[in-house]
Amino acid sequence: MYTVLSGGVGASRFLQGLVQVVPPRDVTVISNTGDDVEMFGLYVAPDVDIVTYALAGAVNPATGWGLAGDTLAVVGALRRFGYPDWFNLGDIDLATCLHRTRLLREGMPYHAVTAEIAAAWNVEVRITPMTNERVTTRIFSADGEIPFQEYMVRLRGEADVRQISFDGIESAKPAPGVLQAISDAGVVIFAPSNPFVSVGPILAVPGISEALASTRAKKVGVSPIIAGDVVKGPAARMLRSLGHEVSALAVAKIYAASLDAFVIDEQDRALKPSIEALGLECYVCDTMMTSDQRKAELAADTLAAAGVRP
Amino acid sequence: MYTVLSGGVGASRFLQGLVQVVPPRDVTVISNTGDDVEMFGLYVAPDVDIVTYALAGAVNPATGWGLAGDTLAVVGALRRFGYPDWFNLGDIDLATCLHRTRLLREGMPYHAVTAEIAAAWNVEVRITPMTNERVTTRIFSADGEIPFQEYMVRLRGEADVRQISFDGIESAKPAPGVLQAISDAGVVIFAPSNPFVSVGPILAVPGISEALASTRAKKVGVSPIIAGDVVKGPAARMLRSLGHEVSALAVAKIYAASLDAFVIDEQDRALKPSIEALGLECYVCDTMMTSDQRKAELAADTLAAAGVRP
Repeated sequence: MYTVLSGGVGASRFLQGLVQVVPPRDVTVISNTGDDVEMFGLYVAPDVDIVTYALAGAVNPATGWGLAGDTLAVVGALRRFGYPDWFNLGDIDLATCLHRTRLLREGMPYHAVTAEIAAAWNVEVRITPMTNERVTTRIFSADGEIPFQEYMVRLRGEADVRQISFDGIESAKPAPGVLQAISDAGVVIFAPSNPFVSVGPILAVPGISEALASTRAKKVGVSPIIAGDVVKGPAARMLRSLGHEVSALAVAKIYAASLDAFVIDEQDRALKPSIEALGLECYVCDTMMTSDQRKAELAADTLAAAGVRP
Repeated sequence: MYTVLSGGVGASRFLQGLVQVVPPRDVTVISNTGDDVEMFGLYVAPDVDIVTYALAGAVNPATGWGLAGDTLAVVGALRRFGYPDWFNLGDIDLATCLHRTRLLREGMPYHAVTAEIAAAWNVEVRITPMTNERVTTRIFSADGEIPFQEYMVRLRGEADVRQISFDGIESAKPAPGVLQAISDAGVVIFAPSNPFVSVGPILAVPGISEALASTRAKKVGVSPIIAGDVVKGPAARMLRSLGHEVSALAVAKIYAASLDAFVIDEQDRALKPSIEALGLECYVCDTMMTSDQRKAELAADTLAAAGVRP
């Protein structure tokens, strides 16, 4: 059993590789939900949906989010009513959000809604939200709060983050099955996701860090930082503005207490001794997921770092 | 001031004529809301929206409902989740319903939501729901209940109706402004709509019949039945299956207590003495709304029947 702590685009690409090397039914994804937002009256769950669409083979390969070939008829029509014009939720994507919103309003728990949506997309991987409670990641710059999707989508992460908080986290409980997916796993993987706003919220859900500390699973992280930069997303600027260096080593330091091993890119081989000095095994390989084959190879390398030969 | 009791397609065509002959700002539409339905978790208001789109010049002229050039991306994508495949809510139309649903859930009263949507569509006519309360028209055939939109859309009215009821009508109050629009009007018009399921629910809202009885407005109806048939919708079969003849006279009988005058088609001129015998003035003209010009002429004829020369 393989359990993956997951954000959005980077994690979804990693998962596309993982399901090439292990049976999809053996994989559980614990998805960040701190990005979830109510938009147009719909419950939008960006990370959950990115992973679902990617594993369904339907994600837009150009963006890493949204659906290949999707249209923007509804959001275009919504502008008439004064809605923001920068939140490009496609029509097929919006249908998923409509269904989620309806089921949640009818009282179905979020993890069950998520499972139903994944099943409708013929995804065999088990995808679960980190919690059924509402947790909201809040971003603060020197100028005050920036609503998360504005920060991510409208500003494309181009702001210096001074502080991050997770509203609702104190009273959030791990979604049903989350703790067991950690305790029963042979390998727990921290996907190559943003450590602050993707994996961070998951680790902050009360009970999840404790489950990670007590599981007998091998715990392996994959660096989202390669050669001092990030492939996608705001992690590099966020590391810098929060006072860290922008390196795989800085990410390894953040995760050091939670992990057994850390996977870094060949370009960062020089960091290996410093990462090992943190008490982590360090595995060096090509981590750029530039093709389906490279995704599979990274998954296999990550399992090798955990001592598993799938 | 002109106040129109309105259903969907027939009424919207009449209104397209009326606004050619009187200032749109002088017109109030009291819309049936018995067709309103929650679909895909959205609050869909077919009659309100048909009138709005028609007066915005955006309605699909081929169907009389929906929007010209609209697409079906979302409802197509919703089929994956098991939703009915016969409810073809277009994407632009769905955006209206999304906005309505959000505002209603936030607590804005239905009549204010309706006014905001009409304003966003640049409609100057005042459109108001008959009530802010939820009223649901229920259709019963010999085989039991048929949900209203299934009856209208999926079955295209092809069922024998034995009974009609309006759930929630006893506790419904006229929406703010409705009674005043009747009492202050110079002319109240019953649009050429279905007497049972379009105008009927409006008349059934407690207080509306009383307002009609006490207003000094001239009250004129336009027959939806021409030469023993209906232009659109299930009114003909409904009249027959409920034990009425299918004629303008039968409609005049249903409305006799509420109206001063009734407008019928040239083809039904022979019915004039029988309608006059009901105590109604009877005005005969061409009521087929086959062009914008004919719509305007019918509106002018209807006002003439009320003794008004616009």
